[in-house]
Amino acid sequence: MTAGQGGIRPGEVALGFDPAERVSAGVVFIGRLRTPWGPGTCPKNLRAAREAGAAGRIEVDAPWRAGLEGLAPGMALVVLYWLGAGRRDLIVQAPRHRDSPTGVFALRSPVRPNPIGLAVVHCTGLDAAAGVVEVDALDAFDGTPLLDLKPWIAGIDLPPGGQ
Amino acid sequence: MTAGQGGIRPGEVALGFDPAERVSAGVVFIGRLRTPWGPGTCPKNLRAAREAGAAGRIEVDAPWRAGLEGLAPGMALVVLYWLGAGRRDLIVQAPRHRDSPTGVFALRSPVRPNPIGLAVVHCTGLDAAAGVVEVDALDAFDGTPLLDLKPWIAGIDLPPGGQ
Repeated sequence: MTAGQGGIRPGEVALGFDPAERVSAGVVFIGRLRTPWGPGTCPKNLRAAREAGAAGRIEVDAPWRAGLEGLAPGMALVVLYWLGAGRRDLIVQAPRHRDSPTGVFALRSPVRPNPIGLAVVHCTGLDAAAGVVEVDALDAFDGTPLLDLKPWIAGIDLPPGGQ
Repeated sequence: MTAGQGGIRPGEVALGFDPAERVSAGVVFIGRLRTPWGPGTCPKNLRAAREAGAAGRIEVDAPWRAGLEGLAPGMALVVLYWLGAGRRDLIVQAPRHRDSPTGVFALRSPVRPNPIGLAVVHCTGLDAAAGVVEVDALDAFDGTPLLDLKPWIAGIDLPPGGQ
């Protein structure tokens, strides 16, 4: 989606520093995403992942499994995960699908100052004791670290004025 | 919403460690939320904040402001912010509005292993040069650190099967 580490495309703007070196707080990885995807095969977004028809699985590590109590198949979930393998300093980016360079906060690029990915998915299966949450689709690489799960709630998670 | 630091309610379960001490990766604070809310006055969720009729403002610090290029009033945004002032170790919680203790991943409680808050809001104004994004409502304390802004996109951010 963007040029490789250190590279830059016409119109792109890099910060003069690496955000990874300015740590304000720490996150802990609580599990990982299991998907069929890796570099070169990952769908460009969740809609494309859904169209590919491949389900996803979330593995929650043992210390955190008690936190799954109350989830159930049929619920919609917000999944937050860590896309930190790439660079974090491209503040203006020129992805191929855009006519002109665009600020990172107007893009869903995985390259961002805080590389937190967001997926709204449908829970299709749950084994809380084993820490396994089955979902309809995920658009991240296999092994992507998990940060959080939240229930998706229509009354608060729909924008008030539409897009 | 939960008992104070160190305290615990019947049915609640605390981890035997503090997630803040298990750092897998670092986040950088890129600005802050400006709201009328503080301890004792904060609405319980974004719907209640909306009903209170108070707009919110997001301040993006200078290094990151170029990333706002491409945003515009009228867009729906996902705001990610850091709710790290409280404890992070309550894996099962007993909030007053629930009949029974519930896992943190089935709750929208600010007390969670990775205290990342999520708000889907409507952008009502923008001054990119000044780093100011006006939004229709926010339900966090004034001064809450900002982690990320993303465009909300109906084609990927609506759950496929409903809630």
